This record gives sequence, C-alpha cells and structure tokens, in this order.
Amino acid sequence: MKRNIYLSKISLEEAKQKIEKAVTEGLIRLNTKHETLPIELSLARVTSEAVFARRSSLHYTASAMDGIAVHFRSTENASEKNPIILTNMKDFLYVNTGNPLPEEFDAVIKIEDVIPVQGDNNLQNQRDEFAQLKIFQSVSPGTNVRNVGEDIVTHQLILTANRKIRPVDIGALMAGGIAEIQVWKKPRVAIIPTGEELVGLDDKDIKAGDILDFNSRMLSNSVVQWGGEPVIYPIVRDIKEELKKTLQSAVEENDIVTVIAGTSAGSKDFTAKALADIGEILFHGISIMPGKPTLAGIAKGVPVIGLPGYPVSYLIAAWEFVLPLIYKNLRLPIPKRNKTKTLMAKKVVSRLGNEEFLRVKLARIDDNVMAYPLSRGAGVISSLVEADALIRIPSLSEGLSLKEETEAELLENNSNIDNTIIIIGSHDLILDVLKNELQTNSPEFRLASFHTGSMGGLLALKQGITHLATSHLLDVESGEYNFPYLERILAHHKLVVVNMAYRQQGFMVPKGNPKKILEIKDLTRDDVCYINRQKGSGTRVLLDYLLKQKDINPATIRGYNQEEFTHLMLASAVVNKRADAGLGIFSAAKAFNLDFVPLIKERYDLIIPERYFNSRKIEKILEIIKTDNFKKQVEVLGGYDLSHCGEVLKK
Amino acid sequence: MKRNIYLSKISLEEAKQKIEKAVTEGLIRLNTKHETLPIELSLARVTSEAVFARRSSLHYTASAMDGIAVHFRSTENASEKNPIILTNMKDFLYVNTGNPLPEEFDAVIKIEDVIPVQGDNNLQNQRDEFAQLKIFQSVSPGTNVRNVGEDIVTHQLILTANRKIRPVDIGALMAGGIAEIQVWKKPRVAIIPTGEELVGLDDKDIKAGDILDFNSRMLSNSVVQWGGEPVIYPIVRDIKEELKKTLQSAVEENDIVTVIAGTSAGSKDFTAKALADIGEILFHGISIMPGKPTLAGIAKGVPVIGLPGYPVSYLIAAWEFVLPLIYKNLRLPIPKRNKTKTLMAKKVVSRLGNEEFLRVKLARIDDNVMAYPLSRGAGVISSLVEADALIRIPSLSEGLSLKEETEAELLENNSNIDNTIIIIGSHDLILDVLKNELQTNSPEFRLASFHTGSMGGLLALKQGITHLATSHLLDVESGEYNFPYLERILAHHKLVVVNMAYRQQGFMVPKGNPKKILEIKDLTRDDVCYINRQKGSGTRVLLDYLLKQKDINPATIRGYNQEEFTHLMLASAVVNKRADAGLGIFSAAKAFNLDFVPLIKERYDLIIPERYFNSRKIEKILEIIKTDNFKKQVEVLGGYDLSHCGEVLKK
Repeated sequence: MKRNIYLSKISLEEAKQKIEKAVTEGLIRLNTKHETLPIELSLARVTSEAVFARRSSLHYTASAMDGIAVHFRSTENASEKNPIILTNMKDFLYVNTGNPLPEEFDAVIKIEDVIPVQGDNNLQNQRDEFAQLKIFQSVSPGTNVRNVGEDIVTHQLILTANRKIRPVDIGALMAGGIAEIQVWKKPRVAIIPTGEELVGLDDKDIKAGDILDFNSRMLSNSVVQWGGEPVIYPIVRDIKEELKKTLQSAVEENDIVTVIAGTSAGSKDFTAKALADIGEILFHGISIMPGKPTLAGIAKGVPVIGLPGYPVSYLIAAWEFVLPLIYKNLRLPIPKRNKTKTLMAKKVVSRLGNEEFLRVKLARIDDNVMAYPLSRGAGVISSLVEADALIRIPSLSEGLSLKEETEAELLENNSNIDNTIIIIGSHDLILDVLKNELQTNSPEFRLASFHTGSMGGLLALKQGITHLATSHLLDVESGEYNFPYLERILAHHKLVVVNMAYRQQGFMVPKGNPKKILEIKDLTRDDVCYINRQKGSGTRVLLDYLLKQKDINPATIRGYNQEEFTHLMLASAVVNKRADAGLGIFSAAKAFNLDFVPLIKERYDLIIPERYFNSRKIEKILEIIKTDNFKKQVEVLGGYDLSHCGEVLKK
Repeated sequence: MKRNIYLSKISLEEAKQKIEKAVTEGLIRLNTKHETLPIELSLARVTSEAVFARRSSLHYTASAMDGIAVHFRSTENASEKNPIILTNMKDFLYVNTGNPLPEEFDAVIKIEDVIPVQGDNNLQNQRDEFAQLKIFQSVSPGTNVRNVGEDIVTHQLILTANRKIRPVDIGALMAGGIAEIQVWKKPRVAIIPTGEELVGLDDKDIKAGDILDFNSRMLSNSVVQWGGEPVIYPIVRDIKEELKKTLQSAVEENDIVTVIAGTSAGSKDFTAKALADIGEILFHGISIMPGKPTLAGIAKGVPVIGLPGYPVSYLIAAWEFVLPLIYKNLRLPIPKRNKTKTLMAKKVVSRLGNEEFLRVKLARIDDNVMAYPLSRGAGVISSLVEADALIRIPSLSEGLSLKEETEAELLENNSNIDNTIIIIGSHDLILDVLKNELQTNSPEFRLASFHTGSMGGLLALKQGITHLATSHLLDVESGEYNFPYLERILAHHKLVVVNMAYRQQGFMVPKGNPKKILEIKDLTRDDVCYINRQKGSGTRVLLDYLLKQKDINPATIRGYNQEEFTHLMLASAVVNKRADAGLGIFSAAKAFNLDFVPLIKERYDLIIPERYFNSRKIEKILEIIKTDNFKKQVEVLGGYDLSHCGEVLKK
C-alpha cells in the first residue's frame, strides 16, 4: 500500500513559529505592492506609507460662536455698569459660527452677550441685524476665535503606515487636505480545491459520493473579511501532476496559496508530494483536533498552506494559518480573540496528545457563564454555526469535568451571552419554530436547544445548567406525564410546568407502509428492522412501556440498539432505508413525507425553575407561545393539539 | 434677532427612549423589503426568514476512514489469534474516506488494521490493492461509517430569521442544499449635507470660510460598515424651503434620513423648522457634549436625524442614533462596546449638566490601564483618530481626578493597549518619524506622544503615567541639559538618559525675514509681534534664559503671552501672520518653508525609567533610533546632529 505518512506532527505553537521564522528570515516574501485610491474609497484598506497633512484644519481663522467680531481694544473699558455701544460695519461685524474672522478683528462676542440699542429697529436690515449694539464686558484677543490648525496643522502626521482606515480616519485625512492615499494591495489568496469527489456550485446533480465544494466559498468569504483578495481555482482532480501544475502557476500569481484537502495520509493525498516537488515543506501534520492534517511549505517565496478537507478542521486551520498570513501581508497586528471565564455545562473527555478545539455555546445561568460543548466531529459544520466560542483543551489534558472553570475564546461579540436562553431535553420541531419566532420578535434574544431526551432535561435542571427543560415522560403506574418524575428526581426544586402541546406519537414508515407495520408486535418480525431513540428520551420510555404492556422482549427487535437523537434523524434513517420503522412524532414523518401509524397522544411540557419564571427571557418565551402566529406555524407542522399551549399546569 | 431656541434639552437616555418608543408604537416604520441572493454573495447580509435544510449533509452513507468496506457478519469470528481472510470484490471493497459505502456492506475496517495475505503480490492491481486481506477483529454494523444527516438533516433549521451571515454560515447553508437566500434589503440612509460654507470633494479651490464636506463621507463609510446603503444628497444651501423639498423626497426614498448641520440655534439653522413643517419633532437638543445640537423627528413614518456640524459631535451623535436605527431595520441586536477599567492619567474638569464623551488614549503603565484625555473640542477630529476609547462623564459629575478609577468604552479591539508606548514631554518632528518607523517595523506596537513640554514630561515620570519623557531643559547655572533638572525633580527615581539628537533652535520668521529679526532684542521692537511656546516647555525656558542674559523684561515683548503647544503650530502661526517670529526648531521652519535665524544648538534626550529600559517596548524604540533608515529620515527634516543618537548618557 503506497499510503503517505506524516512527515512530522508538531504542536500548533511550533507550526506557527516555523511560519513566523520563515517570514522573519525572508524565506516567505510579503506583498510589497501598493496602489493609490481616492480617499473616499479607502475604507478598511491599510496605509502603506505615513500620511502627513497637506492643509491645516481649520485652514483659516474662524469665529467659534454666533456673535459679533470685534477688535479687543474697542471693548477694553466695557463692564456691566458701563456698557459700550458698538457700531455695525465699523466697530463690529456679525459673524456666524465658522465664518472667517474679518482681518481687522481679533475676537468674537457671543450673540447672547449683546443687546441692541433701543429704538433702532428702523435700521434693522434683512438679516435681522442691528446697526448698534451694547456690550457689557471686555474681551482679550483670540476670545471665541478658532485658529488655523486648531485640529490638524500642515505637515502633521495624520496616520502612520500600516493603519487600517476607519470612517473617522477618512474624515481626518480629508480635513488635512488629502484626496488620495497609498494603500497596500490586497494580498491575493489562491484557493485550490482538490478531490475527485468535489462538485462545483453550478453542478445541480449531486450523487452519492459527491461533495459540494463549499469549503472554497467559506474560505473566500473569510479572506474578504480578513482584507485579502480570494482567487478560487478550478477543482483539481486528485492527480499529482495536475496539482503540481496548478501550484506552479498559483505561486507566481498570489501572495498566499491554499490547497483544500489531499493533506491527509490517504492513498490519494497528493498535496504534500506535489508541494515537495516544487518547493520546501515546513511541516506536515499538527497535533490539534480538528485540524491535524494541515501542512505548510514555501515555493518561490510564497507560503503554501494545505488545509484539511473536513470543514471544521478546514476552517480552524484557516483561522490559525491563513488569517495571520493575510495580516502579516497587510502589516497589521494579528487580532486576538477576547476571552471569558466559563464553567463547563458537561464533562468532556479529550484524547491525550492532541490540543483540542472544542466548540461551545455560551449562556449565563444565574451568576456563571456556562459552556455547552457542541458536536466534536470534524465534519459537523453546524457545530461552528452554533458556536459562540472555542475552548482549547491542552494536549496533556484528559478533558474537562462538569462545572470545571476554563477559559473560552469568543468567536463573536459577547453581548449575546446574557441573552441566550438554554433549553435542554426532549426534541420537537416546535423548538425550531420557537427559535425563529423569538429571533423575529426580539432579535436581542437567542434560543439554543440541546436534545438529550426528557430525562436529560430533568437532570440538567438538577445540575442547574439550563433555563428550561422539555419533557414528555409517561409514568407507567399512574398514566400521568412528567409530574411523578419531577417529584422523584427534582423533589426539592421549585418548578413551574407549562404545557407546550399534546402531540401524536406513532410509527414513521416508508410511504405506502410496504412492510405493513401496524402495531407494536410487528416490530419483532424477522423482516423488520427498527431504529430507536437514545436511552433517556421520552420516546424510548414510551416504546419500552408499550413493549412491556404487550410483554415483548426488546432483544427480539432487530435494530433496537440503533440509536438516533432527534425525530428528524429517525425519519431520515427510515427514508434512507437504514430501518423500516421508528417511533416518533407526526410532524417529523410529515416533513419527510413518510407514512405514520398513530399509537398515542402525549403531553409535551416546558419545565421552568421558579426563579426564572418571571425573568425577561422566560417571559418572552411564554409570550411567544401564546401568540396566534406561533400556533399557526406549529399547526402547519401537523399532529399537534395546542388547546392548552402556554397554560401553567403546575406551580 | 430671530434665532432658534432648542425645543427641549433632554438626556441621551431619554432621547434614545423616545426613538425606541416611536419604533415600538409603529410611528417609525422599519424596512420590510427583502431580496433573494445567491448564497455565495450573502456575506454579512441578514436573513429575513428562517432557513431549513433542503438536503442532508452527509447526503449519503459514507466511509469515515480509508480502509475496506465489509458486512459485519463476515467479521464475526475474527480475533488476534484467529484472523479471518477476506476476498476483494466478494467479502470487501477498498474505500477511501468519503467514498459511498457500497450497499451490500455496513461497516468499515481501517486500512491500518488489515494486512495482505502473503505471497499475493502478483495479484496486486493498479491501485496497490490486494486480492486477499487478513483481519484480526470483528466489527459491529455502523463501525467507521458516517450516516446520512450526520451534520445536517433535511428540514432542520439552519439559521433563523435576523441572523447576520458569516463565512461559516455560508458553508452550512451550502451543505444543507441552499443555493439562494432571502435577506433584508440594506436600509437606505439618506445623508443630506447642509450649509452655505460647504464645498464638495471635487471643489479644488478652498477659500477661507469654506468647509470641505467630509462629514458626509465619514457617515457614508460608517453606514457601509453598519450594513446600510448610504445615499449622499447634493449639498443644500441654508434655505429652509430648499431643505424642506429635499427632506420631502428623501423620506419617500429612504428608511432613515440624516441632515448634517443646521441643527443648532444659529440664525441660519433651519433643520428643525424644515422638519417641523413636514413631520413631527421628537426632540431638539440633548444634554451631551459633544453632540448637544442633535435633533430627531419623524416624517411619513421615516426617522429624520439632524446631526450637529462639528465632526466629533456629528460622529458621536451618529453612533448614538443612526447606528441603532440601521440595526433596528436589520433586526439585529444593537452592539455594545466592550468596557475596561482605567485610571485617569490626568485630571479632567467637566461641566455640570452635560454628559461628556471624553476621548482617551489607553496604555498599560505597570499594572494599570491608564486613560489619557485627548483634545475635547467638538471640531477636533484628530482626537477621534487617536482615541482608543470613550469615557462618559455623567452630567452630575464635575469631572475626574488624577488616577481616579473609571470605565472606558473601547472603540476598537483592545489588543493594542498592552503594546502602546506613551511619550510625554517636549515636541519634536522626530517623534513622527519614530511613530512611523515603529509601526513599519513592528505593527503590533504603537507610539503615542503628548506634547506638554519638557517639564511636563518630567512631571509625568514623577506621577508614573508615562513610559518615556522627552526633554531639552537647559540649566542656566551650569549650562548643562536635563541632568540638573532630573536631580532636582526626580531625585529618587532610577532613570536612564538616552540622547535622541542635538538640534538647532532659532527664530522662525517669514521668508526673506521682512522684519529683519536677527537677535533677541529685536523681539522688543514695537513693530514685532512674537508668538511663544507654553510655560514648562524647554523652548520657553530657553527664551527666558536668553532674555535674562540680555536683561530684557518679557513684558516688553508683544505677544509674549500668545502660546502654542508644538513647533509646527508655532510655525503655522507665523505663516498665517498671527506673529512675526517664534522661537523653534529648524525642521519646523523648513517644513513650512520659513526662514530661520539660528540661535543655539541644544540637546534633546529620552528619559527612561530604569524598570522599563529592558522591556520589549523600549528595546524596540532604542533599536529603531539606531537604524540608518531612521537617521536618514530625521536628517531630511533638517537641523539635527545625530552623532550621539541612541547613546546612553546617564544610567
């Protein structure tokens, strides 16, 4: 087997230092090209030389007030007791703020401090000005006068080189008489997608094994945000010679070259070989997760970064290597993420030997910022969509325990943390409607849900890591929902139970129900493969209850141990023929156009700690679920009875 | 006098609430228009409806590893002791990561976990694959298999409405089969410049009294940054009817209308009247400084904001009123500035009754973040260029005392605070060269200088509010520079003195020296008007020394009390005929093309507390001043002797 092996596997810090060193030593050449732009088009560009004022601002001597311009000598003896009368066009001239100070005068008296000489109204001119005025105080030269250069003086440095231009800089530069400005050309970043499985955006027909090349668009849009100019190359099929040719021309035409995928140790991973043929490899493989199969090298003075193909690995590697290179080319300091202290909302076990980038959602629970780990798969890009922050788990750590304090690096402005509402518990499509309605009505709030099942929701309440739980736990003894569980599990907690909906549970089966699955005992048939929900979910509890009722041993059901975490995942598994049936809600079956065999109508509740019940966050949620707009959208999903939606069932 | 009076003067908080209320009550209508964009062009736009996945990602069942696809049953009895031999094309197929899992198989064994059956090399096919392999362990169904919907499942909510689209969202949306997306149209923001003093950018001939209309460009570039679409209107001369007509069409065509200037109480301030004629005024005048003459109203459901004409007032009012309206139109939460605790590096006296927005530069001195107040003038836009943060001084506060702890709102990423180097003391044009060289060589550092004069620099060292001081204080007794002053003022401080330059001081006089000012006693002539440097500056000390030498009484010099703070300001005053002569350095005279009458060569030093001397910041500075590049640029300025530049004179 001719499979690649990693040339090296070094730490992220070492990898970054290797690039840093190559820049310092001139092995990596930075962009030296600049261009001249009209100042009004220079926003967010970076100066490539110092800019000195060509004109003072103010560029003339001006009145700082609405009033009259005078010579200080003509006011010398004025006082409250001994006012002096001044004559227009001789002793004074009316001026407004910003008017040039007439040459013969050297001070301004505010209009509020003068009064017209009585009986003079017939001399009033069209500007409502009086021929004679009384003044009550003397002024010194320069009073209420703005001098030339008050703000900016000619030859003064306005901006040094290497400054990113903001709107306020544009104002100052214009004030200083600058019409054009020299800026660094945007560093050109080549993006070379590779892989025979890739299909482009225009390719409408996506088959099994095809992967849409969205990585190149994620990076091109990032490059734009970072101040570079992305150049997306045509997809290179995994042929080493083709990649080599593309690389050869890319390093001629760009300041930074990136290759997507082919960086791993697979039999078709040619990136390292192609690069080694035309340049030098700095490192191949980093001990981070995700992001391990990252490589970097230099060809003709141009840095070439090989990025992993999995989207999360890809973006993390781009943040760590492409962003700094763009900033280096722009001569800007490399931005650091703001950090915040957090407590882990869940235990996380991490593999020794790799620095892990854990994606987390953040929310304030009582006095703490809690961090909720998101999916850790390198292919799960939705984990980055949801993430508010990254937590780095050091390579020598085995993980983080529940409520362990740690530091999170914020991906966005942190103003949302205080306004994020956490729901943990049972999954329902209603939650998506609720998220969207909240964001529509109150953009400042955000709802995040974690689908751990009903029991997981109650446990989260017990651990104090959630604002809300959702639950539909049937008590087999009493036939009652949720209440008996709350008494057992959360006996001393003050909770409010609010009904969200009654909903239909039943079998989701392929259209036409080809295997004729009509009742529980059909699941035990040899020709039937079932797919289950995870342990602790209300739906699993329901299934086990129904099996027990009919005295059926779960071991007799094929696929009983196949688990999925949401109703949609279950429906999707049935559509994709992983199973012939799954127990779930009507709305999920409807979304996937599956047939549905109704079995039971159950109660789906919100469980709310009393101390949050009157908080603005929760009030907002309870307000929304009572609106017609919300109910209408939920009814479209199908299978819901909302007659008690929003009702407090227990307090 | 028909001058306007403010309709009201309310607090900033009240003013903002009035607008908030008008939005809530529907008096201000928000933009309801949306548009559909290809997903790859949607960066930084805002979703106007929820987006649900149209395709799962993965959309097929795939191998998660490079290896062989098998059926779990064919591996059931394999173990280390009892390996099983599998045959290609029958019991297994080779797969790479991402390949579709062949339909007949349900698990993948990693390539590292299989070995070829010996002696089989002749069967090796072109893909380096073997006809028979040995396996040493059993696998369960689903091992190393990625299921459909692993990341995103069809019908799953990817983004709610009202989410600003980031590169990672573009990736997730594409993965979810979304090709086009519905976003809010960018809110259109009308920018109407008013004032007969305004001249446009194309107007090359700027006369006294003319003001370049840079405000509209500052706002238009801000609007772009905030996600709106700016529409700059032609300049409206101060005629009420003209403004009214422009307003009438602007409210038809835009979501937000802004009027620049004409909002004050001057005789030509028509904005309030024009607005009152076509709509309703919400407030006129706010108790903030700068920014008082701000007004707001509503016409045809469109908010109209009258912004003050002074650029700092203007931008502060735009931040407070225009930015939130744009975000409201985009249904985004209004961003909050990050805050940091700071100690005041200088006492600030504030006027009661106004909330003041103090612009400050921030730097870390020892363990504290210190805040350095910048110019407080509403017209001094360079104060905003320099500002790192704003400090709000409440309307009932009389100001802030030296080293008082307060909170600053960060205008930019705060990563620069730790890398800002503060110089306080004597002004020289060399400092501009130093700033630029530092930024060129080490973009992560930034140098800020405050020109308080040499004595001010020594005082700043005593107060512990600066990293460096610059000084050229002549001791009259000894004829020595700086050392005697350090002994007197900073006796117990451990300091290092490093020479920057020897420089020429002399009279800066108009070209041709029309008044023939050749020596000190010429300053006492009746026809000569002098302009002085401020008390405490080394140049002032020098003048007083020269006067004393000749036994001249300062009171006999006209203009002795006219003060400026920098050599450039002094030269500018001579150019602008405020004075016939000023004492200053050769380089400033040269910059302004003035004649120069040399009087003395003096020493200009850097004074450095010993505890900073070996810090990275200061090392960087000392490195730079020794470079040829730095020296060359300083020599171009003229009048410097750099033979001892960088030499430690005293330790």
